[in-house]
Amino acid sequence: MIPSVDVCFSPLLYPVHENKNAIVVVVDILRASSSICAAFMNNVNSIIPVSTLEEARNYKDKGFIVAAERDGIKIDFADFGNSPQHFTKERVAGKTIVYSTTNGTKIIKMAAESKLALIGAFSNLDALANFLIRQNNDVVIFCAGWKKRFNLEDSLFAGALSEILINSNQFSALCDATLASIDLWNTAKLDVAKYTNKLTWTARLGMPEVLNACMQTNITDKIPYYKEEQLICF
Amino acid sequence: MIPSVDVCFSPLLYPVHENKNAIVVVVDILRASSSICAAFMNNVNSIIPVSTLEEARNYKDKGFIVAAERDGIKIDFADFGNSPQHFTKERVAGKTIVYSTTNGTKIIKMAAESKLALIGAFSNLDALANFLIRQNNDVVIFCAGWKKRFNLEDSLFAGALSEILINSNQFSALCDATLASIDLWNTAKLDVAKYTNKLTWTARLGMPEVLNACMQTNITDKIPYYKEEQLICF
Repeated sequence: MIPSVDVCFSPLLYPVHENKNAIVVVVDILRASSSICAAFMNNVNSIIPVSTLEEARNYKDKGFIVAAERDGIKIDFADFGNSPQHFTKERVAGKTIVYSTTNGTKIIKMAAESKLALIGAFSNLDALANFLIRQNNDVVIFCAGWKKRFNLEDSLFAGALSEILINSNQFSALCDATLASIDLWNTAKLDVAKYTNKLTWTARLGMPEVLNACMQTNITDKIPYYKEEQLICF
Repeated sequence: MIPSVDVCFSPLLYPVHENKNAIVVVVDILRASSSICAAFMNNVNSIIPVSTLEEARNYKDKGFIVAAERDGIKIDFADFGNSPQHFTKERVAGKTIVYSTTNGTKIIKMAAESKLALIGAFSNLDALANFLIRQNNDVVIFCAGWKKRFNLEDSLFAGALSEILINSNQFSALCDATLASIDLWNTAKLDVAKYTNKLTWTARLGMPEVLNACMQTNITDKIPYYKEEQLICF
Protein backbone atom coordinates (compact mmCIF):
# COMPACT_ATOMS: atom_id res chain seq x y z
CA MET A 1 0.00 0.00 0.00
CA ILE A 2 1.34 3.40 -0.96
CA PRO A 3 0.61 6.23 1.48
CA SER A 4 -2.59 8.25 1.09
CA VAL A 5 -3.39 11.94 0.70
CA ASP A 6 -6.48 13.09 2.54
CA VAL A 7 -8.02 16.57 2.45
CA CYS A 8 -10.06 18.00 5.32
CA PHE A 9 -12.13 21.05 4.33
CA SER A 10 -12.98 22.43 7.78
CA PRO A 11 -11.98 22.11 11.44
CA LEU A 12 -15.48 20.72 12.07
CA LEU A 13 -14.63 17.78 9.80
CA TYR A 14 -11.21 17.09 11.32
CA PRO A 15 -12.42 14.39 13.74
CA VAL A 16 -13.24 12.12 10.76
CA HIS A 17 -9.95 12.89 8.96
CA GLU A 18 -7.60 12.74 11.95
CA ASN A 19 -4.83 10.17 11.54
CA LYS A 20 -2.29 10.03 14.35
CA ASN A 21 0.31 8.50 12.05
CA ALA A 22 -0.04 11.15 9.36
CA ILE A 23 1.98 14.20 8.53
CA VAL A 24 -0.56 17.02 8.71
CA VAL A 25 -0.21 20.10 6.49
CA VAL A 26 -1.99 23.09 8.02
CA VAL A 27 -3.40 25.48 5.40
CA ASP A 28 -4.89 28.90 6.02
CA ILE A 29 -4.08 30.76 2.82
CA LEU A 30 -5.89 33.93 3.96
CA ARG A 31 -3.73 34.47 5.96
CA ALA A 32 -2.01 32.61 8.77
CA SER A 33 -0.14 29.96 6.81
CA SER A 34 0.89 32.39 4.05
CA SER A 35 2.20 34.86 6.62
CA ILE A 36 4.08 32.21 8.58
CA CYS A 37 5.82 31.01 5.41
CA ALA A 38 6.65 34.63 4.50
CA ALA A 39 8.26 35.13 7.90
CA PHE A 40 10.47 32.06 7.49
CA MET A 41 11.34 33.09 3.94
CA ASN A 42 12.63 36.29 5.56
CA ASN A 43 14.63 34.34 8.11
CA VAL A 44 12.53 34.67 11.23
CA ASN A 45 14.08 32.53 13.97
CA SER A 46 10.79 31.19 15.35
CA ILE A 47 7.10 32.07 15.65
CA ILE A 48 4.95 31.62 18.73
CA PRO A 49 1.29 31.28 17.67
CA VAL A 50 -1.16 32.51 20.32
CA SER A 51 -4.95 32.26 20.46
CA THR A 52 -5.91 35.38 22.37
CA LEU A 53 -4.99 39.05 22.35
CA GLU A 54 -4.39 38.74 26.10
CA GLU A 55 -1.62 36.21 25.47
CA ALA A 56 -0.22 38.44 22.73
CA ARG A 57 -0.16 41.42 25.10
CA ASN A 58 1.57 39.38 27.81
CA TYR A 59 4.32 38.51 25.33
CA LYS A 60 4.51 42.16 24.22
CA ASP A 61 4.99 43.20 27.85
CA LYS A 62 7.91 40.75 28.06
CA GLY A 63 9.56 42.45 25.07
CA PHE A 64 8.50 40.19 22.18
CA ILE A 65 7.58 41.52 18.75
CA VAL A 66 3.87 40.91 18.14
CA ALA A 67 1.88 40.59 14.90
CA ALA A 68 -1.83 40.95 15.59
CA GLU A 69 -4.99 42.16 13.86
CA ARG A 70 -8.70 41.72 14.27
CA ASP A 71 -11.06 42.22 11.32
CA GLY A 72 -8.19 43.44 9.14
CA ILE A 73 -7.07 46.22 11.52
CA LYS A 74 -3.77 46.16 13.44
CA ILE A 75 -4.24 45.90 17.20
CA ASP A 76 -2.98 49.05 19.01
CA PHE A 77 -0.20 47.34 20.99
CA ALA A 78 0.98 45.17 18.07
CA ASP A 79 4.13 45.92 16.08
CA PHE A 80 2.50 45.05 12.77
CA GLY A 81 -0.41 43.21 11.18
CA ASN A 82 -1.01 39.61 10.11
CA SER A 83 -0.48 39.67 6.34
CA PRO A 84 2.52 38.23 4.45
CA GLN A 85 3.80 41.64 3.34
CA HIS A 86 4.16 42.73 6.99
CA PHE A 87 6.78 40.07 7.72
CA THR A 88 9.72 41.82 6.07
CA LYS A 89 13.39 40.88 6.54
CA GLU A 90 13.96 44.11 8.46
CA ARG A 91 11.26 43.25 10.95
CA VAL A 92 11.71 39.51 11.44
CA ALA A 93 15.20 38.21 10.47
CA GLY A 94 16.82 36.40 13.39
CA LYS A 95 13.93 37.16 15.76
CA THR A 96 11.13 35.35 17.56
CA ILE A 97 7.74 36.76 16.62
CA VAL A 98 4.45 36.26 18.43
CA TYR A 99 1.62 35.73 15.94
CA SER A 100 -1.94 36.16 17.12
CA THR A 101 -4.44 33.98 15.27
CA THR A 102 -7.42 32.47 17.02
CA ASN A 103 -8.34 29.80 14.50
CA GLY A 104 -4.81 29.26 13.23
CA THR A 105 -3.43 28.49 16.68
CA LYS A 106 -6.25 26.08 17.43
CA ILE A 107 -5.78 24.23 14.15
CA ILE A 108 -1.99 24.01 14.49
CA LYS A 109 -2.45 22.46 17.95
CA MET A 110 -5.04 19.98 16.62
CA ALA A 111 -2.62 19.02 13.82
CA ALA A 112 0.25 18.64 16.28
CA GLU A 113 -1.53 15.65 17.85
CA SER A 114 -0.36 13.68 14.80
CA LYS A 115 3.14 12.69 13.72
CA LEU A 116 4.21 16.10 12.44
CA ALA A 117 2.43 19.41 11.78
CA LEU A 118 3.77 21.42 8.83
CA ILE A 119 2.67 24.80 7.52
CA GLY A 120 1.73 24.94 3.84
CA ALA A 121 1.13 27.91 1.54
CA PHE A 122 1.45 28.60 -2.18
CA SER A 123 4.81 30.21 -1.39
CA ASN A 124 6.38 26.88 -0.35
CA LEU A 125 4.25 24.50 -2.46
CA ASP A 126 6.99 22.68 -4.40
CA ALA A 127 9.37 22.49 -1.45
CA LEU A 128 6.63 21.02 0.69
CA ALA A 129 5.60 18.51 -1.99
CA ASN A 130 9.20 17.35 -2.43
CA PHE A 131 9.61 16.99 1.33
CA LEU A 132 6.42 14.93 1.59
CA ILE A 133 7.39 12.69 -1.32
CA ARG A 134 10.64 11.85 0.51
CA GLN A 135 8.82 10.89 3.74
CA ASN A 136 6.73 7.98 2.36
CA ASN A 137 4.04 8.67 4.97
CA ASP A 138 0.27 9.32 4.97
CA VAL A 139 -0.56 13.01 4.53
CA VAL A 140 -3.62 14.94 5.73
CA ILE A 141 -4.07 18.43 4.29
CA PHE A 142 -6.00 20.35 6.94
CA CYS A 143 -7.79 23.42 5.56
CA ALA A 144 -8.68 26.10 8.09
CA GLY A 145 -11.77 27.09 6.11
CA TRP A 146 -13.70 30.32 6.64
CA LYS A 147 -15.68 30.61 9.86
CA LYS A 148 -15.72 26.79 10.03
CA ARG A 149 -17.09 26.55 6.46
CA PHE A 150 -15.43 25.14 3.34
CA ASN A 151 -13.47 27.85 1.52
CA LEU A 152 -12.03 27.94 -1.97
CA GLU A 153 -8.53 29.34 -1.40
CA ASP A 154 -7.51 26.62 1.06
CA SER A 155 -9.14 23.95 -1.11
CA LEU A 156 -7.27 25.17 -4.21
CA PHE A 157 -3.99 24.85 -2.34
CA ALA A 158 -5.01 21.37 -1.15
CA GLY A 159 -5.70 20.47 -4.78
CA ALA A 160 -2.40 21.86 -6.02
CA LEU A 161 -0.46 19.90 -3.39
CA SER A 162 -2.53 16.70 -3.80
CA GLU A 163 -2.03 16.79 -7.55
CA ILE A 164 1.76 16.89 -7.22
CA LEU A 165 1.76 14.08 -4.67
CA ILE A 166 -0.55 11.83 -6.68
CA ASN A 167 1.26 12.55 -9.96
CA SER A 168 4.45 11.34 -8.25
CA ASN A 169 2.77 7.89 -8.18
CA GLN A 170 3.82 7.58 -4.57
CA PHE A 171 0.45 8.53 -3.05
CA SER A 172 -3.18 7.55 -3.53
CA ALA A 173 -6.28 9.71 -2.91
CA LEU A 174 -7.91 8.70 0.37
CA CYS A 175 -11.36 10.10 -0.34
CA ASP A 176 -13.53 12.21 -2.61
CA ALA A 177 -12.36 15.44 -0.95
CA THR A 178 -8.88 14.87 -2.38
CA LEU A 179 -10.29 14.28 -5.88
CA ALA A 180 -12.58 17.32 -5.64
CA SER A 181 -9.77 19.62 -4.54
CA ILE A 182 -7.66 18.52 -7.52
CA ASP A 183 -10.54 19.21 -9.92
CA LEU A 184 -11.12 22.64 -8.39
CA TRP A 185 -7.42 23.44 -8.72
CA ASN A 186 -7.50 22.37 -12.37
CA THR A 187 -10.45 24.68 -12.98
CA ALA A 188 -8.66 27.55 -11.26
CA LYS A 189 -5.03 27.15 -12.25
CA LEU A 190 -5.27 28.44 -15.80
CA ASP A 191 -6.07 31.88 -14.41
CA VAL A 192 -5.79 31.86 -10.65
CA ALA A 193 -6.17 35.62 -10.27
CA LYS A 194 -9.40 35.62 -12.23
CA TYR A 195 -10.69 32.57 -10.38
CA THR A 196 -9.96 33.92 -6.93
CA ASN A 197 -11.84 37.12 -7.77
CA LYS A 198 -15.02 35.21 -7.11
CA LEU A 199 -14.19 34.03 -3.60
CA THR A 200 -17.12 35.00 -1.42
CA TRP A 201 -14.78 35.80 1.47
CA THR A 202 -12.68 38.20 -0.59
CA ALA A 203 -15.78 39.78 -2.01
CA ARG A 204 -16.98 40.46 1.52
CA LEU A 205 -13.73 41.86 2.92
CA GLY A 206 -12.20 43.33 -0.21
CA MET A 207 -8.46 42.81 0.27
CA PRO A 208 -7.03 42.22 -3.22
CA GLU A 209 -3.43 43.11 -2.24
CA VAL A 210 -3.50 40.57 0.59
CA LEU A 211 -4.90 37.91 -1.73
CA ASN A 212 -2.16 38.62 -4.28
CA ALA A 213 0.52 38.27 -1.60
CA CYS A 214 -1.03 35.02 -0.40
CA MET A 215 -1.18 33.50 -3.89
CA GLN A 216 2.53 34.03 -4.71
CA THR A 217 3.81 30.60 -5.59
CA ASN A 218 7.15 28.84 -5.03
CA ILE A 219 9.11 31.76 -3.66
CA THR A 220 10.61 29.92 -0.68
CA ASP A 221 11.91 26.46 0.17
CA LYS A 222 11.37 26.87 3.93
CA ILE A 223 8.98 24.43 5.57
CA PRO A 224 7.75 25.59 8.98
CA TYR A 225 6.75 22.94 11.53
CA TYR A 226 5.41 22.99 15.07
CA LYS A 227 7.49 21.85 18.02
CA GLU A 228 7.13 22.62 21.70
CA GLU A 229 4.67 25.53 21.33
CA GLN A 230 6.71 27.19 18.59
CA LEU A 231 7.02 27.14 14.83
CA ILE A 232 10.51 26.58 13.54
CA CYS A 233 11.62 25.42 10.10
CA PHE A 234 13.46 22.73 8.14
CA MET B 1 -31.63 41.19 -1.53
CA ILE B 2 -32.39 38.14 -3.62
CA PRO B 3 -32.50 34.83 -1.74
CA SER B 4 -29.30 32.80 -1.34
CA VAL B 5 -28.26 29.26 -2.18
CA ASP B 6 -26.03 27.61 0.37
CA VAL B 7 -24.42 24.17 0.12
CA CYS B 8 -23.53 22.08 3.15
CA PHE B 9 -21.12 19.23 2.37
CA SER B 10 -21.55 17.10 5.50
CA PRO B 11 -23.86 16.68 8.51
CA LEU B 12 -20.90 17.75 10.68
CA LEU B 13 -20.97 21.15 8.94
CA TYR B 14 -24.73 21.63 9.20
CA PRO B 15 -24.62 23.69 12.42
CA VAL B 16 -22.85 26.52 10.52
CA HIS B 17 -25.20 26.29 7.51
CA GLU B 18 -28.50 25.90 9.36
CA ASN B 19 -31.03 28.62 8.52
CA LYS B 20 -34.44 28.23 10.14
CA ASN B 21 -36.05 30.35 7.41
CA ALA B 22 -34.60 28.32 4.56
CA ILE B 23 -36.06 25.61 2.40
CA VAL B 24 -33.64 22.70 2.88
CA VAL B 25 -33.02 20.19 0.10
CA VAL B 26 -31.80 16.87 1.49
CA VAL B 27 -29.43 15.05 -0.85
CA ASP B 28 -28.15 11.50 -0.48
CA ILE B 29 -27.63 10.42 -4.06
CA LEU B 30 -26.25 7.01 -3.05
CA ARG B 31 -28.96 6.16 -2.17
CA ALA B 32 -31.69 7.43 0.15
CA SER B 33 -32.80 10.51 -1.76
CA SER B 34 -32.63 8.78 -5.15
CA SER B 35 -34.70 5.87 -3.85
CA ILE B 36 -37.29 8.13 -2.20
CA CYS B 37 -37.76 10.04 -5.45
CA ALA B 38 -38.05 6.74 -7.36
CA ALA B 39 -40.78 5.60 -4.99
CA PHE B 40 -42.81 8.79 -5.52
CA MET B 41 -42.27 8.57 -9.27
CA ASN B 42 -43.92 5.15 -8.97
CA ASN B 43 -46.80 6.59 -6.99
CA VAL B 44 -46.00 5.52 -3.47
CA ASN B 45 -48.55 7.08 -1.11
CA SER B 46 -46.06 7.95 1.64
CA ILE B 47 -42.72 6.87 3.10
CA ILE B 48 -41.88 6.57 6.78
CA PRO B 49 -38.12 6.96 7.25
CA VAL B 50 -36.76 5.09 10.29
CA SER B 51 -33.31 5.15 11.86
CA THR B 52 -33.01 1.65 13.28
CA LEU B 53 -33.70 -1.89 12.14
CA GLU B 54 -35.67 -2.36 15.36
CA GLU B 55 -38.12 0.36 14.32
CA ALA B 56 -38.27 -1.16 10.84
CA ARG B 57 -39.11 -4.57 12.33
CA ASN B 58 -41.83 -3.10 14.56
CA TYR B 59 -43.48 -1.59 11.48
CA LYS B 60 -43.10 -4.90 9.64
CA ASP B 61 -44.85 -6.69 12.52
CA LYS B 62 -47.76 -4.23 12.15
CA GLY B 63 -48.11 -5.16 8.46
CA PHE B 64 -46.12 -2.39 6.74
CA ILE B 65 -43.94 -2.99 3.70
CA VAL B 66 -40.29 -2.44 4.65
CA ALA B 67 -37.25 -1.50 2.53
CA ALA B 68 -34.04 -2.18 4.45
CA GLU B 69 -30.42 -3.12 3.81
CA ARG B 70 -27.15 -2.96 5.65
CA ASP B 71 -23.86 -2.88 3.75
CA GLY B 72 -25.62 -3.49 0.46
CA ILE B 73 -27.44 -6.67 1.57
CA LYS B 74 -31.22 -6.89 2.10
CA ILE B 75 -32.21 -7.46 5.73
CA ASP B 76 -33.92 -10.84 6.23
CA PHE B 77 -37.30 -9.49 7.37
CA ALA B 78 -37.40 -6.68 4.75
CA ASP B 79 -39.56 -6.86 1.62
CA PHE B 80 -36.85 -5.38 -0.57
CA GLY B 81 -33.63 -3.35 -0.55
CA ASN B 82 -32.84 0.36 -0.52
CA SER B 83 -31.92 1.14 -4.13
CA PRO B 84 -34.06 3.07 -6.63
CA GLN B 85 -34.70 0.04 -8.85
CA HIS B 86 -36.33 -1.80 -5.93
CA PHE B 87 -39.16 0.76 -5.66
CA THR B 88 -41.19 -0.48 -8.63
CA LYS B 89 -44.80 0.49 -9.36
CA GLU B 90 -45.92 -3.04 -8.53
CA ARG B 91 -44.38 -2.85 -5.09
CA VAL B 92 -45.13 0.71 -4.02
CA ALA B 93 -48.07 2.34 -5.91
CA GLY B 94 -50.72 3.54 -3.48
CA LYS B 95 -48.90 2.17 -0.43
CA THR B 96 -47.04 3.44 2.62
CA ILE B 97 -43.48 2.11 2.72
CA VAL B 98 -41.11 2.06 5.69
CA TYR B 99 -37.59 3.00 4.61
CA SER B 100 -34.71 2.17 6.91
CA THR B 101 -31.79 4.59 6.63
CA THR B 102 -29.74 5.57 9.64
CA ASN B 103 -28.06 8.69 8.26
CA GLY B 104 -30.88 9.62 5.92
CA THR B 105 -33.48 9.70 8.69
CA LYS B 106 -31.24 11.76 10.94
CA ILE B 107 -30.54 14.29 8.20
CA ILE B 108 -34.19 14.59 7.14
CA LYS B 109 -35.11 15.34 10.77
CA MET B 110 -32.32 17.93 11.06
CA ALA B 111 -33.55 19.58 7.86
CA ALA B 112 -37.15 19.54 9.08
CA GLU B 113 -36.22 22.05 11.81
CA SER B 114 -36.23 24.67 9.04
CA LYS B 115 -39.13 26.02 6.98
CA LEU B 116 -39.51 23.02 4.70
CA ALA B 117 -37.47 19.86 4.05
CA LEU B 118 -37.53 18.58 0.46
CA ILE B 119 -35.88 15.51 -1.04
CA GLY B 120 -33.64 16.13 -4.05
CA ALA B 121 -32.11 13.70 -6.55
CA PHE B 122 -30.98 13.83 -10.16
CA SER B 123 -34.33 12.24 -11.05
CA ASN B 124 -36.31 15.34 -9.96
CA LEU B 125 -33.66 18.01 -10.58
CA ASP B 126 -35.54 20.33 -12.95
CA ALA B 127 -38.86 19.99 -11.14
CA LEU B 128 -37.17 20.84 -7.86
CA ALA B 129 -35.34 23.81 -9.36
CA ASN B 130 -38.55 25.19 -10.85
CA PHE B 131 -40.35 24.76 -7.54
CA LEU B 132 -37.56 26.58 -5.66
CA ILE B 133 -37.48 29.43 -8.17
CA ARG B 134 -41.20 29.99 -7.55
CA GLN B 135 -40.76 30.15 -3.75
CA ASN B 136 -38.43 33.20 -3.59
CA ASN B 137 -36.87 31.85 -0.39
CA ASP B 138 -33.35 31.06 0.86
CA VAL B 139 -32.25 27.52 0.00
CA VAL B 140 -29.79 25.25 1.80
CA ILE B 141 -28.69 22.13 -0.09
CA PHE B 142 -27.80 19.62 2.59
CA CYS B 143 -25.50 16.83 1.37
CA ALA B 144 -25.51 13.64 3.40
CA GLY B 145 -21.86 12.99 2.54
CA TRP B 146 -20.15 9.64 3.03
CA LYS B 147 -19.50 8.56 6.63
CA LYS B 148 -19.66 12.25 7.63
CA ARG B 149 -17.09 13.20 4.95
CA PHE B 150 -17.52 15.31 1.82
CA ASN B 151 -18.55 13.14 -1.12
CA LEU B 152 -18.59 13.85 -4.83
CA GLU B 153 -21.98 12.52 -5.91
CA ASP B 154 -23.96 14.69 -3.49
CA SER B 155 -21.76 17.70 -4.28
CA LEU B 156 -22.28 17.24 -8.01
CA PHE B 157 -26.03 17.29 -7.48
CA ALA B 158 -25.67 20.38 -5.29
CA GLY B 159 -23.73 22.02 -8.11
CA ALA B 160 -26.28 21.07 -10.75
CA LEU B 161 -29.13 22.50 -8.68
CA SER B 162 -27.19 25.61 -7.59
CA GLU B 163 -26.26 26.36 -11.18
CA ILE B 164 -29.90 26.34 -12.33
CA LEU B 165 -30.95 28.54 -9.40
CA ILE B 166 -28.16 31.08 -9.90
CA ASN B 167 -28.60 31.15 -13.67
CA SER B 168 -32.23 32.10 -13.06
CA ASN B 169 -30.85 35.37 -11.62
CA GLN B 170 -33.19 34.95 -8.68
CA PHE B 171 -30.57 33.56 -6.27
CA SER B 172 -27.05 34.45 -5.14
CA ALA B 173 -24.33 32.09 -3.89
CA LEU B 174 -24.08 32.30 -0.11
CA CYS B 175 -20.55 30.94 0.23
CA ASP B 176 -17.61 29.27 -1.49
CA ALA B 177 -19.17 25.82 -1.11
CA THR B 178 -21.90 26.83 -3.56
CA LEU B 179 -19.31 28.09 -6.08
CA ALA B 180 -17.16 24.98 -5.66
CA SER B 181 -20.07 22.63 -6.21
CA ILE B 182 -20.98 24.43 -9.44
CA ASP B 183 -17.39 24.13 -10.71
CA LEU B 184 -17.27 20.45 -9.83
CA TRP B 185 -20.55 19.89 -11.68
CA ASN B 186 -19.17 21.71 -14.71
CA THR B 187 -16.11 19.47 -14.67
CA ALA B 188 -18.29 16.37 -14.39
CA LYS B 189 -21.33 17.13 -16.53
CA LEU B 190 -19.72 16.61 -19.93
CA ASP B 191 -19.35 12.91 -19.12
CA VAL B 192 -21.01 12.13 -15.83
CA ALA B 193 -20.65 8.38 -16.14
CA LYS B 194 -16.91 8.66 -16.72
CA TYR B 195 -16.52 11.19 -13.91
CA THR B 196 -18.42 9.16 -11.35
CA ASN B 197 -16.24 6.15 -12.10
CA LYS B 198 -13.61 7.73 -9.90
CA LEU B 199 -15.74 8.15 -6.78
CA THR B 200 -13.78 6.62 -3.96
CA TRP B 201 -16.99 5.29 -2.37
CA THR B 202 -18.10 3.50 -5.53
CA ALA B 203 -14.62 2.14 -6.02
CA ARG B 204 -14.76 0.64 -2.55
CA LEU B 205 -18.24 -0.89 -2.78
CA GLY B 206 -18.42 -1.57 -6.51
CA MET B 207 -22.11 -1.02 -7.36
CA PRO B 208 -22.18 0.39 -10.91
CA GLU B 209 -25.85 -0.52 -11.53
CA VAL B 210 -26.94 1.33 -8.39
CA LEU B 211 -24.89 4.37 -9.40
CA ASN B 212 -26.46 4.35 -12.88
CA ALA B 213 -29.96 4.22 -11.38
CA CYS B 214 -29.09 7.09 -9.01
CA MET B 215 -27.73 9.31 -11.80
CA GLN B 216 -30.84 9.11 -14.02
CA THR B 217 -31.84 12.72 -14.54
CA ASN B 218 -35.21 14.46 -14.91
CA ILE B 219 -37.41 11.39 -15.03
CA THR B 220 -40.00 12.63 -12.49
CA ASP B 221 -41.65 15.87 -11.46
CA LYS B 222 -42.53 14.63 -7.97
CA ILE B 223 -41.02 16.57 -5.06
CA PRO B 224 -41.10 14.66 -1.78
CA TYR B 225 -41.23 16.66 1.47
CA TYR B 226 -41.31 15.79 5.14
CA LYS B 227 -44.38 16.36 7.27
CA GLU B 228 -45.39 14.79 10.58
CA GLU B 229 -42.85 11.94 10.53
CA GLN B 230 -43.65 10.99 6.94
CA LEU B 231 -42.54 11.85 3.44
CA ILE B 232 -45.33 12.83 1.10
CA CYS B 233 -45.13 14.76 -2.17
CA PHE B 234 -46.21 17.87 -4.04
